[in-house]
Amino acid sequence: MKRTNRRRVLQLSAGLGSGLLGKADEGRPPGRPLSGYGERSKYVKPARTMRQTKTPQAGSSATPLADMYGIITPSSLHYERHHAGVPDIDPDEHRLLIDGLVERPLMLTMEDIRRLPSVSRIHFLECGGNSGGEWQEKTGPDAQRSYGLASCSEWTGVPLRLVLKEAGVKPEAKWMIAEGADACRMQRSVPLVKDLDEALLAYGQNGEPLRPEQGFPLRLLTPGWEGNVQVKWLRRLFVTAEPHYTRDETAKYSDLMPDGKTRIFTLTQEAKSVVTFPSGGRRLAGAGWYEITGLAWTGRGRITRVEVTLDGGREWREARLDQPVLHKAFTRFRLPWKWDGKAAVIASRATDESGYVQPTREELIAVRGRNSGYHFNGIKVWRIQADGSVTNGDA
Amino acid sequence: MKRTNRRRVLQLSAGLGSGLLGKADEGRPPGRPLSGYGERSKYVKPARTMRQTKTPQAGSSATPLADMYGIITPSSLHYERHHAGVPDIDPDEHRLLIDGLVERPLMLTMEDIRRLPSVSRIHFLECGGNSGGEWQEKTGPDAQRSYGLASCSEWTGVPLRLVLKEAGVKPEAKWMIAEGADACRMQRSVPLVKDLDEALLAYGQNGEPLRPEQGFPLRLLTPGWEGNVQVKWLRRLFVTAEPHYTRDETAKYSDLMPDGKTRIFTLTQEAKSVVTFPSGGRRLAGAGWYEITGLAWTGRGRITRVEVTLDGGREWREARLDQPVLHKAFTRFRLPWKWDGKAAVIASRATDESGYVQPTREELIAVRGRNSGYHFNGIKVWRIQADGSVTNGDA
Repeated sequence: MKRTNRRRVLQLSAGLGSGLLGKADEGRPPGRPLSGYGERSKYVKPARTMRQTKTPQAGSSATPLADMYGIITPSSLHYERHHAGVPDIDPDEHRLLIDGLVERPLMLTMEDIRRLPSVSRIHFLECGGNSGGEWQEKTGPDAQRSYGLASCSEWTGVPLRLVLKEAGVKPEAKWMIAEGADACRMQRSVPLVKDLDEALLAYGQNGEPLRPEQGFPLRLLTPGWEGNVQVKWLRRLFVTAEPHYTRDETAKYSDLMPDGKTRIFTLTQEAKSVVTFPSGGRRLAGAGWYEITGLAWTGRGRITRVEVTLDGGREWREARLDQPVLHKAFTRFRLPWKWDGKAAVIASRATDESGYVQPTREELIAVRGRNSGYHFNGIKVWRIQADGSVTNGDA
Repeated sequence: MKRTNRRRVLQLSAGLGSGLLGKADEGRPPGRPLSGYGERSKYVKPARTMRQTKTPQAGSSATPLADMYGIITPSSLHYERHHAGVPDIDPDEHRLLIDGLVERPLMLTMEDIRRLPSVSRIHFLECGGNSGGEWQEKTGPDAQRSYGLASCSEWTGVPLRLVLKEAGVKPEAKWMIAEGADACRMQRSVPLVKDLDEALLAYGQNGEPLRPEQGFPLRLLTPGWEGNVQVKWLRRLFVTAEPHYTRDETAKYSDLMPDGKTRIFTLTQEAKSVVTFPSGGRRLAGAGWYEITGLAWTGRGRITRVEVTLDGGREWREARLDQPVLHKAFTRFRLPWKWDGKAAVIASRATDESGYVQPTREELIAVRGRNSGYHFNGIKVWRIQADGSVTNGDA
């Protein structure tokens, strides 16, 4: 992304003014007519990068974070993580079954669900495996391929508690097994805890029905928890007394600790942040003014502070946060920076309203070891070379 | 939109449970693989309706408000209003010239602009002619065709004041002429007033670059003002001491009053609201519980209150507002309603933080007459028939 600084802007206007004004003064024929459903400009190219895999139905694709503005991720660029591909579901045929330890089992159509009182909220969604490469030295070369399994949308749905109340959850019930209608019948055990008061049976995303990759026509949304438990193409909630220890919460999405024990059901995504400009693969045009920007988020509520270091962690400056800062949503941070043209090591550090401060990679590894591929939220370091190129700090 | 009520939900589950469970239990083959840029489900059809016109380059298309969830309008469904079609602009060739009464004329490339400090905010955008048909008895049959020239996006851009400061606006400057790069060279006179502190040189919409229909690669965004003054495909800001009284602020977007005088530069969009469910063209399935929902917005800041009447205005009930309520953005309101199956007349009334209360159509006409096709913000009435069908209250 070639950029010039403010001083050069003035030189530009002096140097190129007349010529460019001439060009800008050329006339133009009438443009395209109205359209029913618009598309982006042919000059705009960002796309989700797909992780190479023998089974493209069971892979992931990442949001181009360094090309994104603000906090809303366009639905077409929301990250994907599928275990058996994207099913083609006719919403008129889809049903949600709520059974198990309930007084009144329910079988709901999409019309039944959409008719119930709903709410819309902006929340981030992050795969439990996002930035997992950071545990080893196998991280991606840029923000997209290292941190792109996180996105943020406005979700619309029916509060889960309202439907569970209709079904009448029995006192001995402590969990529910959420099951997807995809080919692998994704199943996750969901604890019936306080956090679930925010959960939605979500049917809307960024103003439209859910996109197919995000669970059309219905998904479980549990704000702040890892993506995999927010089961897509949701077809059943089986209320139980115990978890089922399904494949995706035992073989996957659990953390093997240094002592050989495994942490399981570590659902909450802790405070995390990443600088998206400058970030891996970009190149600064030369010394001068730039705006450092990036994203921060936490599963524990609001981000209260983001600090940025420009000298490898010796000094930290507080970044400006775009307002309002939303609950369990992406938060956009910004900091003006005059680059002196010398090599620099930059990083961001997020703090949330629980008081939690994002740890360094080393601090995280000291406690959790390096056996896990999940739940990495250490500070992300970018290294800027004197030629303006940007690479991983660990590289 | 067929809907069943909560009681019938329970009957459904009892009556259809086993059979549907059987269906839901059928297996499914692996689904579609990952994709670079996603699309909506083939089962999702809402589109912008285009006003019939001999010149489709100079018309408008409306957002399907009754099909929208939450407050974010998908960029593909943002309303359009073009005076000479949608130009195809190469962002690398585009320039913004800032000249006139300034110390240092500027010629900026898109790279120059994106490099400057930016901010992202969610704001509504509304055509000054939205719901203009309400002045007469020529309004559209549904929410889309009567109120659909309003949408809401997260916009990203550079604060205008920052760039004007770079250029050094002279003391005698009181206006600027914003000019578009479309075929008609759209021009509007913009007063350099306090409201403009919130103005952006916007290059981002809902996380992506602006859509072509919204001014790609650059538009003026003046939150709370009528859409036409927020010039798209922005190519020039000519700073002046006086307005230029251009065609689109004299022949159009001005209000002919009963005394024969014309109100001009009535830029701020006053508090307004519309019930989107139930609304024209929908049909209620029968007596029982429904959630009435709709949208409210104001150019004067935040919506503080939305009231809904179910009996033609005798009694007003306060609706619940999705939180947080944002500054100069769509606000989603909701109210549970148990319909008794009899004919009903429903409407919504918005109040904003300036204390302004949305007037009735009659109150508005009493003051402004019926000569204008612009700036209508009277209360919108829907009539529900005993058979559940919904039509315009005025029809």
